[in-house]
Amino acid sequence: MLKLYGFSVSNYFNMVKMAIALKQIDCEDVITYPNQTPEYLAISPTGKVPALQTDDGVLIETNVILEYLDENYSGITLYPADAYQKARVKELVKMIELYVELPARRCHAEAFWGIRGEDITKKEVKRALLNGMQAISRAASFSPYIAGENLTAADIFFLYSADLAAKVATKLFDIDLLAEAPGAKELLAKLNDMPEAKAIAEARKEATPAFNAYLQKAFQK
Amino acid sequence: MLKLYGFSVSNYFNMVKMAIALKQIDCEDVITYPNQTPEYLAISPTGKVPALQTDDGVLIETNVILEYLDENYSGITLYPADAYQKARVKELVKMIELYVELPARRCHAEAFWGIRGEDITKKEVKRALLNGMQAISRAASFSPYIAGENLTAADIFFLYSADLAAKVATKLFDIDLLAEAPGAKELLAKLNDMPEAKAIAEARKEATPAFNAYLQKAFQK
Repeated sequence: MLKLYGFSVSNYFNMVKMAIALKQIDCEDVITYPNQTPEYLAISPTGKVPALQTDDGVLIETNVILEYLDENYSGITLYPADAYQKARVKELVKMIELYVELPARRCHAEAFWGIRGEDITKKEVKRALLNGMQAISRAASFSPYIAGENLTAADIFFLYSADLAAKVATKLFDIDLLAEAPGAKELLAKLNDMPEAKAIAEARKEATPAFNAYLQKAFQK
Repeated sequence: MLKLYGFSVSNYFNMVKMAIALKQIDCEDVITYPNQTPEYLAISPTGKVPALQTDDGVLIETNVILEYLDENYSGITLYPADAYQKARVKELVKMIELYVELPARRCHAEAFWGIRGEDITKKEVKRALLNGMQAISRAASFSPYIAGENLTAADIFFLYSADLAAKVATKLFDIDLLAEAPGAKELLAKLNDMPEAKAIAEARKEATPAFNAYLQKAFQK
């Protein structure tokens, strides 16, 4: 059976959980915080989560895991069969990660845990987030899903990246980031309303106190 | 026929050029610097290069373009046929881009054009590059290629990312970055010695004066 390393507060972990839930795949969670112990680095070469243990070996990087699951397991497909359309979904996934998730992440500590960041970082992130969301708006369809009529991996990435990025933008820059991509708010509402998303949100809520305690300890070091 | 937007000094453009050369695909270059004109944004939603015009539409993001070309054109394969091994190559490509190319890129302006950056940026980049190259060393094989016996897309990414990142590390941090991944120097030498790589290096050299003039004008604005 597949084993997924990670924890329920991690948005990347939850992307894989969403794919697993949608495709109804059997998979055991191994609750793990990112760490650089030799034991975990032997599993995940970056020490990050999620990491997926398969029968063949471990895979890291969420988009790679999603593509692997989609190619190897039946159920709802997360990538179109057509070569060009499939590439377009991968492109959208990449854009969401590089131009929304990763810039926003540089300000998570300030937005969510009150640890003040550098002004230069915030200036860069503000600009990157606006550019990123505008680029996604040009590339995406939002009718109703990111890539068109059907839910794809791009929607999973959007669900677990855009909401956090929007919170960063509101808290730190007083910007309504989702307004840069007409259709984005409606899509997020639709995705959040899915039973699979609700179950993941519930698990996230339950796991939050333990994660906060872990973080507090880590910051005290 | 395929059309590739970009310019020969761009390392991402050269990754696609390398794939095209190795697979012997017919493709016309449309020399383009990254820009935010409405005309180019209608082609490339980020305004970045490369962008590949196919019969079906445009694709951006280099790894997506490489996967698309490999799936749709014969010749040397850049990704293994086996599902897990293919995922591993995608994982290595992603790691090279996220943990080596993108951090190094934040310091390109200082390393290559003498525009002094922020100390906080350099501190972050130094740490990211060391962590990134060590993670790649754990994940990669370098025997002789990144993923093992055969050249893959990961080698193309490494060829056009690791050399630039190593130059940033030497110039700004006095660090021998490639020493963090035993086998990396030998692999770069082997890849740089390929006739396709030599032709791309020559085109890069020829295109450099025009690009420098363009940059100088841009910085004066």
